[in-house]
Amino acid sequence: MNGIVQVDWRDAAPLSREEFEAAIRAVGAERYHDKHEFHKLLHGGKLQKEQVAAWALNRYCYQEAVPRKDAAFMSRVHDRALRREWIHRIHDHDGLGEEGGGIERWLVLTDALGFSRDYVTSRRGALPATKFAVEAYVRFVVEQPLVVAVASSLTELFAPSIHRERIAGMLENYNFVDDQVMAYFKRRLTQAPRDSEFALAFVLDNARTRAEQEACVGAVRFKCDVLWAQLDALHHAYVTPGLIPPGAWRPGETNV
Amino acid sequence: MNGIVQVDWRDAAPLSREEFEAAIRAVGAERYHDKHEFHKLLHGGKLQKEQVAAWALNRYCYQEAVPRKDAAFMSRVHDRALRREWIHRIHDHDGLGEEGGGIERWLVLTDALGFSRDYVTSRRGALPATKFAVEAYVRFVVEQPLVVAVASSLTELFAPSIHRERIAGMLENYNFVDDQVMAYFKRRLTQAPRDSEFALAFVLDNARTRAEQEACVGAVRFKCDVLWAQLDALHHAYVTPGLIPPGAWRPGETNV
Repeated sequence: MNGIVQVDWRDAAPLSREEFEAAIRAVGAERYHDKHEFHKLLHGGKLQKEQVAAWALNRYCYQEAVPRKDAAFMSRVHDRALRREWIHRIHDHDGLGEEGGGIERWLVLTDALGFSRDYVTSRRGALPATKFAVEAYVRFVVEQPLVVAVASSLTELFAPSIHRERIAGMLENYNFVDDQVMAYFKRRLTQAPRDSEFALAFVLDNARTRAEQEACVGAVRFKCDVLWAQLDALHHAYVTPGLIPPGAWRPGETNV
Repeated sequence: MNGIVQVDWRDAAPLSREEFEAAIRAVGAERYHDKHEFHKLLHGGKLQKEQVAAWALNRYCYQEAVPRKDAAFMSRVHDRALRREWIHRIHDHDGLGEEGGGIERWLVLTDALGFSRDYVTSRRGALPATKFAVEAYVRFVVEQPLVVAVASSLTELFAPSIHRERIAGMLENYNFVDDQVMAYFKRRLTQAPRDSEFALAFVLDNARTRAEQEACVGAVRFKCDVLWAQLDALHHAYVTPGLIPPGAWRPGETNV
């Protein structure tokens, strides 16, 4: 079969709760995007302002996809209590009433980097690979079993440390970044742990068979791939070899 | 082509705003479910308690589908302002924080009619035709252009009068119905007009070509069909000829 070895977990014993959680966490240690070369450059102050701008412009597409991903998930949930829990993720990103939300805070960052909001929100300057990756995430939560869809959010387990590192590294290294600009990441320091705690308990409780457990671990791996692919595309376009695909934002481009 | 006459609107001039709104409203006059025989019986106090119970049990499936439909819609919306406006529809049905929401109020009605909440929320006693109809609505907003998806909500334009009639008719005619039980409909008297006003303006503003306008009118027709089909199924199963399909709730059935 094309040389692909597909493990059949149907006859395997389930992992214990502790083994299962450890397997999920091991994915972060192995392939979370804090290990990507681009992140090291970003946090270490090794990027030019325009490279940081390219990152913020592209990462907007991910931010913007997240509430749609959460709505897509909710559209499949018949359990009202679960929907009532999950909806605050949309509030966190889109805001609610007076509160502007995470996407608004992200736009403060792209403002500081010199982009017009119309250009950013149009997503037309973003790399196609970015958009393909984030839409793959939206599709994943539409198509996978619910517990596997929830598991794909568990990269949030690994987020607070990267955010702390990012806040410190960017404030220290870039003079175009200040506290206000980093507000998005500061807020995520409290939001992400609350969300990931709920999602982890849900996954540990609801993935019962070994096959379901492995699918959940696979979902975390998939999600790491979604994040990693975005940095690969950025690195290729804006760092090495610096080959920007047609239509994507080019440093120095005006009227954006 | 199989005898189907498909009108090609591409070369037709757009309707004026007034003509377009009138065409939408005409659908309600022609086929909103207040014209269905079952509704006349329901409002006129002509049903037995168990027939009202069958209606409430089945209609729960529709109530439960609506926030999923709204989440499915939001999952496709890139415009944050539109998502921020739309999300209150989910709050209205699912509740938010202390507020229990419309589905909770619906369950007060099914409580009063003698069903356990587990039985109602499992949807296992509902008619298959009910479930097919409401899921067709969820799919419609996933698959249709956004403006057409919004248009499918416009049956809310016709809802307040049916709700007022229902509250009066049911309170007058059924001794198992009181103010608390009718709380769902009372709340919708204020929620539906706010929602339909926004949706109508959105549709009038955003459907520009005649083809788009006709697709929106068709969406209202489709949505009326979704509502009508539910009453047809109820009428056939529980009124005339009273043929209840396998698996559906049977009056007098215990342990539900």
